[in-house]
This record gives sequence, C-alpha cells and structure tokens, in this order.
Amino acid sequence: MTTQSAGHLINGEWVKGEGEVMTSQNPFDSQCIWQGEEATRPQVEQAVSAAREAFLRWRNTDFAERQALVERFSEIVKANTDDLARTIAEETGKPFWETKTEVGAMVGKVAISLRAYHERTGSREKDVNGTQAVLRHRPLGVMAVFGPYNFPGHLPNGHIVPALLAGNSVVFKPSELTPKVAEKTLEYWVEAGLPHGLINLVQGGRHTGEALAQARGIDGLLFTGSANTGHILHRQFAGQPDKMLALEMGGNNPLVVSDQFGDLDATVYTIIQSAYLSAGQRCTCARRLLLPEGEVGDKILTRLAQWTKTVRVGGQFDDPAPFMGAQISVAAAEGILATQQKLVDLGAKPVIECEHQHDAVISPGILDVSGIQDLPDEEYFGPLLQVQRYQDMADAVTKANDTRYGLSAGLISEDDGEWQYFLDHIRAGIVNRNRQLTGASGDAPFGGPGASGNLRPSAYYAADYCAYPMASMEGQQVVLPETFAPGIPTQQD
Amino acid sequence: MTTQSAGHLINGEWVKGEGEVMTSQNPFDSQCIWQGEEATRPQVEQAVSAAREAFLRWRNTDFAERQALVERFSEIVKANTDDLARTIAEETGKPFWETKTEVGAMVGKVAISLRAYHERTGSREKDVNGTQAVLRHRPLGVMAVFGPYNFPGHLPNGHIVPALLAGNSVVFKPSELTPKVAEKTLEYWVEAGLPHGLINLVQGGRHTGEALAQARGIDGLLFTGSANTGHILHRQFAGQPDKMLALEMGGNNPLVVSDQFGDLDATVYTIIQSAYLSAGQRCTCARRLLLPEGEVGDKILTRLAQWTKTVRVGGQFDDPAPFMGAQISVAAAEGILATQQKLVDLGAKPVIECEHQHDAVISPGILDVSGIQDLPDEEYFGPLLQVQRYQDMADAVTKANDTRYGLSAGLISEDDGEWQYFLDHIRAGIVNRNRQLTGASGDAPFGGPGASGNLRPSAYYAADYCAYPMASMEGQQVVLPETFAPGIPTQQD
Repeated sequence: MTTQSAGHLINGEWVKGEGEVMTSQNPFDSQCIWQGEEATRPQVEQAVSAAREAFLRWRNTDFAERQALVERFSEIVKANTDDLARTIAEETGKPFWETKTEVGAMVGKVAISLRAYHERTGSREKDVNGTQAVLRHRPLGVMAVFGPYNFPGHLPNGHIVPALLAGNSVVFKPSELTPKVAEKTLEYWVEAGLPHGLINLVQGGRHTGEALAQARGIDGLLFTGSANTGHILHRQFAGQPDKMLALEMGGNNPLVVSDQFGDLDATVYTIIQSAYLSAGQRCTCARRLLLPEGEVGDKILTRLAQWTKTVRVGGQFDDPAPFMGAQISVAAAEGILATQQKLVDLGAKPVIECEHQHDAVISPGILDVSGIQDLPDEEYFGPLLQVQRYQDMADAVTKANDTRYGLSAGLISEDDGEWQYFLDHIRAGIVNRNRQLTGASGDAPFGGPGASGNLRPSAYYAADYCAYPMASMEGQQVVLPETFAPGIPTQQD
Repeated sequence: MTTQSAGHLINGEWVKGEGEVMTSQNPFDSQCIWQGEEATRPQVEQAVSAAREAFLRWRNTDFAERQALVERFSEIVKANTDDLARTIAEETGKPFWETKTEVGAMVGKVAISLRAYHERTGSREKDVNGTQAVLRHRPLGVMAVFGPYNFPGHLPNGHIVPALLAGNSVVFKPSELTPKVAEKTLEYWVEAGLPHGLINLVQGGRHTGEALAQARGIDGLLFTGSANTGHILHRQFAGQPDKMLALEMGGNNPLVVSDQFGDLDATVYTIIQSAYLSAGQRCTCARRLLLPEGEVGDKILTRLAQWTKTVRVGGQFDDPAPFMGAQISVAAAEGILATQQKLVDLGAKPVIECEHQHDAVISPGILDVSGIQDLPDEEYFGPLLQVQRYQDMADAVTKANDTRYGLSAGLISEDDGEWQYFLDHIRAGIVNRNRQLTGASGDAPFGGPGASGNLRPSAYYAADYCAYPMASMEGQQVVLPETFAPGIPTQQD
C-alpha cells in the first residue's frame, strides 16, 4: 500500500516537500510503499526556526509537563504496537516478530530516559555554611537528530526522548530509506499533544541532511549512522566547539570462541544470533569470528556452517516466520555480494556463500579470511561473517583489537581466567561473555572508542549530551563578612 | 632564587630540554626564578611513548593501587603546602594567602575525584534472568594535559588526578609561564611513588605544545586556556573523533545588580571579589557589571569606585598582604592597558583608570562602556571591569547573554522572582546569586556553553571524559534456549 504523503512536519503543520521526488520500497518485494518529496534547504531552515521558537517556550516548562508528553507518546506507541511494527517490517524488511521488539524498546525508552535524566543530570542541592550549592542542568537548544535505517523507530527515539526531557527541541531527519516509519512516529507524537515546532520532521537524502547539518540555528547534532558520514560531520563541525556533536558509528566487531567454549550447539546458536540477527544489520553484530586453530575450531566451524544453511530467510510476514529478512535495499544487498567477491579475490575461502535470492534478499554467508594478509578493516553491514583462526588467547585478543573501531566484542568461554584477560585487554564499549553480541541492554550506555564514535556514549548516557550542567552558589542576601579578605580595607563613609 | 633545572620528567628520568632556552620570571619584580630549555618534538614523542608503555601496565592495576598513589600525592602536597604555595605565588604574582587556598584545592581534589569516579563512572552490576548485566568503565590511554598559568597547580591537577584514577597515563605540558610550579608538582608525584612514565612533564611554549597536540600516540587532550587556542585545537582535531578533546576556555562574564540589591557595602564587596580576585585572572571573574540606569545604579558605581581605589595591590609576600598581585607577565599587563586604551577610543568612559605601577603590576580599573555601540565580545583576562547600564531585568538578561561565551554569570538581588527569571533565561554554566562569581565549588561540574568550551564540563564531571563505559552481558556458560528464535530450526545430528 503506497502512502502519498505530506511527509514533513514543520511547526506543527504537515506539509509537502518542495524538493526531488523520493520513494520508499519494501525491500522484500520492491513495491513502493511511500512517496513524497524531499525537504529543500529553505524548508529545513523553516524547521530549524520553528524548533528555535518552540525551544524558547519548552525549556522553561515544568519537568512534569515534559514527562507527561513523553509518557503519553509511549502509551500511544504501546497501543499501536502492531501497526508501527508492521510499518517498520514493511519498510526495513525485518521480520514482524522482530520489529515488535523494536517497538517494545521504544516504549521502554521512556522509563529508562526518565531514570537516566535524574541520575545523570537532574538537580541536587546542599547547604554549605548558609549558601545553597545547587546543581541544575539546562538544555542546549535545537537538536538535529539524524536517524539510521536499521532501527528507524528505536534509535532516533533514543535521542529524541532524552532531548525533549532535558528541554531541547528537535529537527529530525530520518534515513531516506525509512520515511514512512518516521512519519508514523511523528503522527503518534502529534496525537500525544506535541507542541508546535517541538519536533520537526524533514525528509530527504544527502541534500536535506547537508542543509540541516549546516544550519546555523542548530545547537547540536545527534547522529547514528556510518563511520564515513560521521567523520565528514566531525570535520564539518571543526572550529564549532559550542555545538554538541554526538556520533554513534559502526564496528568491526570480533567474537572470540575459546577452546573452553562449553556446549557446542549453544555456542553455534550464540554465533548465529550474533552474526545474523536483523540480517546482519545491527551495529553490534559480530563481523569477525575468531576460532582456535586445529580440530576444536574446525568442529565449531563445521557445525556453524551446517546450522547456518538451515536458517530461514524470508518475507516479513511469512508463516512460519523467517529469522532473517531482506537487506534494507537492493543496493545494500549488492554491496554485500560485491564485498564477498572482493574478499574472495583477496584470498578468502567461502565456507558458505552469501547468495542473492531476489530483490534485496540475500542468504547468510561465511568466509574464512585467515589467508588474507591485509584484511580490510571495514564494517560490512550485512550477513557476511568473516572467520579468523588464532593460536592462543593472547593472539585472539590481539587480532580482535586489530581494528580502528571499538563498538562490541564477545568471548565464549567457561574459563574465568580467560574472561578476566579478555576484559583487561579488549578495547570495546560492549563486551559480552557467553551471550550474543546483538541486543544491548537499554539501561546501559551504548557506544565504543576508536572510530565507533566520538566518545559521547548514548542510550543510558544520552542524558549527558542533551544538557549542560549549571552550578550555583545561592544566598538570599549579599553578605558583608566579619573579616574581609586581605587587602580590602574597611570603608569609612 | 633561580632554579637551573632539568625541567622535564620523561619515563621517570629528570632530563634537560634540547630546545630553546626558556626562563620564568617573578612578575612582581621581573627576577628570573627558573631557567631551562624547551622540550623538542623528539623529546615530546619520547614522553608520549613512555606514557603509552606506562598506560599498558597502569590500566590493569587495581583501583586501590591507583587510589593509594593519588592519596600519597595529596598527603605530600598537604605537608608541603607552604613550600608549594610560595612557589605558586612567586611564579604567578598571586598573594601568598591566596596560593595557599590553591594548594588546599589541590589536596581536596583527590577526595572529590574519588567520589566522582564512583558516582559518574566506576562499576555496577545486576542480575537479569540469570545474565549479569555489568557496567564498567575503561581508561582512554595517553592523555595530554595542557595547563594554564592562572592556577598552575590546581587546574592541571584537576585533570591529572581523575585521569590517573580512571587508569590513563599523562603527558603534562604546563604553561610556559609556570614551569617551576609544574616541576615542583612532579617532584611530589615522584616522591609519592609515581611509576615510570605514568606522568611525563614536558616544558615549553608553542612548539612544544604543537608537538604534543599533534603526537599520534595521544588518545586525548585536556586543555584549559584561551578560547583562541582552544578553537585552534578543535580545528586540529577535526576528523579524529576517537581522540577525546576537552576544552575549558574563557568567558565574558556578566554580573547583574538588581535595584533590589540589598545592602550596599555587601554588594560592592561582592563585586570587588568577583572582578578583581586573582587580579582578574580567574576564568569566572566578572568582566561586565550590569547596573540599573538612574540613581540606584549611580549610587552603586560611586561606592564601587571609591572602594576599589583603596584595594591593596602589591607583592606576594607583602605585610600587610595585598588583595591583588601582579599580572602573570609584563606582556599581559601591557595587554590590559592597551585594551583599556582601545575601549576608551571606542567611546568608553574611565571610572577608575587601570594604571601601570611597575613590572607586571597594574591597578584595578573600571570603564563605563554603555556608550559603545559595538562592544567587542572578548575576554580581557585582568582587572578591567566594564560597566553597562540596563533598563529592566529583561534588558539586563538580554545584555548579559549578548556574548558568544557562557562560563559564569551572577545576579545580586533579594527578589526571588527576579532570580527565577534570571535562572530561566541566563545562558551560563556557573550562575550565582548574591555570591561572588569567583570561587566555584570543587565538587560541582565546571564549564559553560558557547565559546567557553566544547560541552565537556570538568571538575566534578572530569571523570566522564577520562573513561569510556563498557557494558557487558555475562553468563558463566553459553545457553541453548528452550524455545529458539523464529526461523532457527532445531538441528538433527
């Protein structure tokens, strides 16, 4: 069902874009499901101006009012779980059962953000010899939120909710691949009683994004997306330290399986969940599987290959349900296939080939890349798992850390000593033991060092970058001390 | 007394610099008190390498060991309060009574940093259905610490202590105007049992600073200094989001006196403390005094001028003690005098002229700048207070906020409504009521929006940028769930 859409919410009005035509396809069958026009630079500027006006009102509202708005939104999303989950599934290709968990995460984000607001920011007060020492936090202003396509509901929501709670206003530019989810989300906000201009939605691709990132009126930019775009933004913001830039980028995440791995099938199940959940389109997905050299590693790899071949790939609403849906787009699917070919040309040995089925649908692949001398350190955002073999745990950790990224890393081992060694030496922001790499806890901070971000961790710590602290020393009256500071003489009138 | 010094601590060895000769003068009498040579680029690289080696050991030490080191340092500093305070006074020109408070702040920083470490970072753990959800924090690596001259002990210490507690190592480049204080501080660290290379000291000016900021081996740069240098660093770090850059820059801080000010002398005393403490060389100093138009404002200004003329300016160790000492250097003193002339040329009316006494010593000045159409928005880092007149509180706050900076701001008023309005509309990180602007609480965050920093508040929040969070989901074994995810079939062997 195609939606011919107004598409943009600017200052509380649904308006049509004045730029190029844009469409959104269901990646499983290439049917057009949404059609509209991109926002032009003047429209983006209008959205930023509207957000500025809204900010001046919103920043001084009671916290209770902010809380009430996001809670109403949360209730509306919850009541519409199936509807929103269906739209996310339709637009991203993810299985319906999975997108329901995404909507659940959106609902849960509100309570978590409230807790984080009070714990990380909020206010506190104490008396210091008759002076009140008070710590408050203040919003930054207009926040530009750039959303990704893989969690088009949950991830922008993880910026928008804390931004609003802190008193900011928002201009939201979703991925151009997921305009329909964004529009539906904003409909819920409007239904929740969103004040005019508090969240503005501008749709579009690169030109719209550039217009928003370059808008003088924004006070911050909260980005989730590729390392490439994130680095461009970082350069673009050079010399503007006053603008909050929070970058969440990708990872080239290692999952190390020790020879003390424990149960074989549980291990393989954990690898599959780590590498292929969301068809490999999660930031935290295992991209590299590190297996011990020799028989133990061979046994794991054989079992993994055997099991991976049986994983069901299919349509969002298929019955029985698939584990993996389509890639986000035909171009993305082709990119993974091209990468596979490139790695094979470099010397990788296919264990299971990733194959094109139809439209944006590809099957999971496994490449043994141990033979590649200079393995590219890139994030391949799809179901293509690279296997590396290692000699001992020190070698495994060295290989695991041999990436400019640092988002997630995992160890499968029943040995506490190995785990301690791993914890002490691995460089990543999400580090799991005997649990799948995918599916980070919503009430923990999220992000990692290196090229995975700019050290502004999000999720539970999003509160940190949505506000600045304001520290006060307060007295009801000015006081003339009994003893003056040295060198200030008493005055005779 | 001139110290002919080795000057640099690299990998636990005191070494001579191989660059240009540098000296440090007592700004009160221009006597040379320290002489050495700048660190060259190769020496800076050595220091960074040594810090890298030390980091690899230090990051995995028990927290108790880190705590013990900084606590020993704190005890040594406390035991040597007079000695260190004398050196700070000698090198900066600040009165001895005041530098003793600076040393006190250094001692107090340790307990505060320990509390902040645990509250803002540290670790926590909870059980989620048999999985341990654990949050830890990890150090970033080698931190370059750039110190300012106005608090050559306290401010670098406010970066070094939290950096070490979090598990980082440090390369410290103090201001080239205060090498002697830095050297003495490092002597205390060595006495406390500093592991080799954990803190390295490199002395020098611009070339040394550039070498350190550009060193590939640093993982972060913690800077306190001018907005100009801070912005240069921000541009230099463009495209390197993986390096932590924390900038604490200046302010063009407004102090608003309402016509509901209360006691006149207490008000004037508070203004003097705000404008002239440390001879106007605190980041938080009031630079602009906003007084109501008409008789009330006239009365305050008259009393302020009268009292300011009597403030004692003098040598660090004079008896009776001065309130104000020298500026940090003759050049700095000349800069303030030149600024005064420039503002007068633009139309400012001197209320009290800032006058050159000798060497780097100047007296406090007051300029009425109300008549200047385009008042420059600059931080003049000295005892030159600019007076602006306003019509009503809305006008006062508009004028107060008319700066690209946002470090500190104050209101003197007994009216709670005015205070609430001020709090709701002022844009600054330190916002005081009826208390001097200078002298921020050590257990509060410090920093402000706009050109005053890059939204990485320091002091109590320094813990935040000295570590990144590492979130874990941990189980003792991998687990094969009773019900598999949809689309993952059970395997038959």
